[in-house]
Amino acid sequence: MSRDSRAVPFAASVPVAELVERAQAGEARAVARLISMVEDRSPSVREVSAALTPHTGRAHIVGITGSPGVGKSTSTSALVTALRAEGRRVGVLAVDPTSPFSGGALLGDRVRMQDHATDHGVYIRSMASRGHLGGLSASAPQALRVLDAAGCDVVLVETVGVGQSEVEIAGLADTTLVLLAPGMGDGIQAAKAGILEIGDIFVVNKADRDGAASTRRELRSVISMTDRPDGAWKPPIVLTVATTGEGIPEVVREIAAHHAHLDASGELTGRRLARLRREIEALALTDVQRRFAHLSGHARLDTLAEEVLAGRLDPFAAADTLVEHL
Amino acid sequence: MSRDSRAVPFAASVPVAELVERAQAGEARAVARLISMVEDRSPSVREVSAALTPHTGRAHIVGITGSPGVGKSTSTSALVTALRAEGRRVGVLAVDPTSPFSGGALLGDRVRMQDHATDHGVYIRSMASRGHLGGLSASAPQALRVLDAAGCDVVLVETVGVGQSEVEIAGLADTTLVLLAPGMGDGIQAAKAGILEIGDIFVVNKADRDGAASTRRELRSVISMTDRPDGAWKPPIVLTVATTGEGIPEVVREIAAHHAHLDASGELTGRRLARLRREIEALALTDVQRRFAHLSGHARLDTLAEEVLAGRLDPFAAADTLVEHL
Repeated sequence: MSRDSRAVPFAASVPVAELVERAQAGEARAVARLISMVEDRSPSVREVSAALTPHTGRAHIVGITGSPGVGKSTSTSALVTALRAEGRRVGVLAVDPTSPFSGGALLGDRVRMQDHATDHGVYIRSMASRGHLGGLSASAPQALRVLDAAGCDVVLVETVGVGQSEVEIAGLADTTLVLLAPGMGDGIQAAKAGILEIGDIFVVNKADRDGAASTRRELRSVISMTDRPDGAWKPPIVLTVATTGEGIPEVVREIAAHHAHLDASGELTGRRLARLRREIEALALTDVQRRFAHLSGHARLDTLAEEVLAGRLDPFAAADTLVEHL
Repeated sequence: MSRDSRAVPFAASVPVAELVERAQAGEARAVARLISMVEDRSPSVREVSAALTPHTGRAHIVGITGSPGVGKSTSTSALVTALRAEGRRVGVLAVDPTSPFSGGALLGDRVRMQDHATDHGVYIRSMASRGHLGGLSASAPQALRVLDAAGCDVVLVETVGVGQSEVEIAGLADTTLVLLAPGMGDGIQAAKAGILEIGDIFVVNKADRDGAASTRRELRSVISMTDRPDGAWKPPIVLTVATTGEGIPEVVREIAAHHAHLDASGELTGRRLARLRREIEALALTDVQRRFAHLSGHARLDTLAEEVLAGRLDPFAAADTLVEHL
């Protein structure tokens, strides 16, 4: 699969079933077209999802999170190289929750990923999530489903930006990598943002800098304080220099080890079921929200807001009216 | 109203109508009790909301956002002092979206706010929003309603933490202050996070530091590039040193000027209606989510997730089943 393939769009008339077949055969243009369809929420998104679902469940979804500046992009690129060297098919989904723009021209397709642009075993896609109800939960699972059905062994999901999206990424992934860098005060910030709780593997990148050892020590002490049942996964800490590839093979090994652990313990199924519950719920709530917007008469949202502003109705009673008129 | 008052809780048996009357009369314990009731989502939250709504709409809600380290807490405290000097009754709601803890002992009640703890014209409250559906949208509007009905002229809403919550704060406020500090690379970060779009007033705090002038210049250039219709508000930039109070009176003047502008242009009503629409919708969606969780048989979320995992159902069809069984 290559970057160039997206330049030639498919005719809109190609049936979904045929697109899915071609995507499964590894045809990059078909993959690109399917992701666009699920991302644009085109009317055929339901048809696409229905056609894809039976072919999913094989890909190992790996989330990559961390504060800006820790080297997420470079690490992602280095991981792609290492996974490709093992002959694995790799997908990359770069999500920018602060950008209203989505699609072909951004992020994942940018310079930093050009090393992989002509590699037919790599599929790279960027998407935005700003403004969607439920943020990432809206389109990202559909895009992951396309990459999964297209035969990717591993899909790396990388956030660009900061904040709650990091926790959302963990919600999408089987395995979550938390990246830190020495001397950025990341230890405390990470604890604050709760990303220590979501990390399955911790990577201290830029380990050639001062402070890598103390960042590792600090992390290790936090990790050791967490109560874990017997047999539970204990998050390893790997030191890397993503720019040179140092430590990357160990990250790849830990990713595989975590997958094996999830599989053996039954946790893989548990995580995926939890993810599907959230996805189904988010889709249903989006549908309900759309229905709210179409109510008329005294159940119109505008009318209800005016009544509350005038002090004639309280917001809970207004909400009841909405739900009753669904 | 004082901090100490919260130490002596009200008897649970005091009727809501009486609590509302006492809160309107400025009794701090009644205000504290009402906020706790709406925050805990106690069964009486609906009753409280209904009793409060007719007495709301007077307070000017001012949101205060900015990256960690720009001096939000110090600025909030300085604004309280300045507003109190004008004889205005002030409420402060400090929201920590990354904390699962809420209530009395945190943040707003901490050391930095102790200057105001014995001032009976100030009411300070902290709350957490982590884990709530819709984040801030769930409890904060109810808490603001209490402070509004209790006769606060101005309520300052301050976020602690980072990320999307900044944009959420703007959604709660009539007027949004965006704080920056020199030399933190805030210019670019702010643009990225979209907080430039939400600022009604920009405050460059720590203006005694190097780089304040260039931060102002950069901001001014970004602001001037934005297209605005004739008569629209042009966000001013104020330089402050919150620790000494320098520039704070100008911020207070700009807050009043913005309020006058909103009032004269009709935008105040527009913003409040938009806010109420979001609040009503969020309450209704929370209710729907609760109903989803109580469905049984083949409409159980667990069962639906299992069907999707097995590839027998796609997530959209699963979501349809949920909505149909509401």
